[in-house]
Amino acid sequence: MKVSDLSAHGFTAGILPSNCPTRTVLDHVTSKWGVLVLVALSQDTLRWGELRRVVEGVSEKMLAQTLRVLESDGFVHRDAQPTIPPRVDYSLTQRGRDLAERLLPLMDWIADNADDILAR
Amino acid sequence: MKVSDLSAHGFTAGILPSNCPTRTVLDHVTSKWGVLVLVALSQDTLRWGELRRVVEGVSEKMLAQTLRVLESDGFVHRDAQPTIPPRVDYSLTQRGRDLAERLLPLMDWIADNADDILAR
Repeated sequence: MKVSDLSAHGFTAGILPSNCPTRTVLDHVTSKWGVLVLVALSQDTLRWGELRRVVEGVSEKMLAQTLRVLESDGFVHRDAQPTIPPRVDYSLTQRGRDLAERLLPLMDWIADNADDILAR
Repeated sequence: MKVSDLSAHGFTAGILPSNCPTRTVLDHVTSKWGVLVLVALSQDTLRWGELRRVVEGVSEKMLAQTLRVLESDGFVHRDAQPTIPPRVDYSLTQRGRDLAERLLPLMDWIADNADDILAR
């Protein structure tokens, strides 16, 4: 059961500790654009321009920053091809796919319920 | 399958539309403190002071704001008892529990993997 798993990681007894690595990774994964980039890449390998289009509304700067963090955390693989013009593909690593597997049910639920939730 | 569900909600073909209600709810749920409050309440009904302690690092202002949004979205129930001093309990609604059910596997995975991820 999830809650007991969380308990084992110090998530009970008055603590969701602010100095815990979990908080840092949570911030990366649930950042405004992090979630959307992960969801986009869960469906397909995408090039920079495709990501810019799919993740509607993201600026060049924020996309670059988001991809840097996700790459540094080992969720996203950046593959630069030595072509002219250069071609850069972004895809999920195995770790990124493991994460997406847990993220997509949440996104599905939100997508299914968003209209009702905001209609209250 | 999750991806096809998402596709049915307009998450493919170049769109994670910026004007979609899904984005608004996603912002609420994955806000810096929203996740932590939801996880805390998934384990127990908590009073204001308990939430302040469990969600370590949250300010009074941010906790109040987070609870207002989660209450307005119908995830959190606020129960004010007419005692002296007044006692206010916060708990998850059925919708909140449905959400937490999708959120906890993600949090579990992050808790299990955070050390490895940041060690890269």
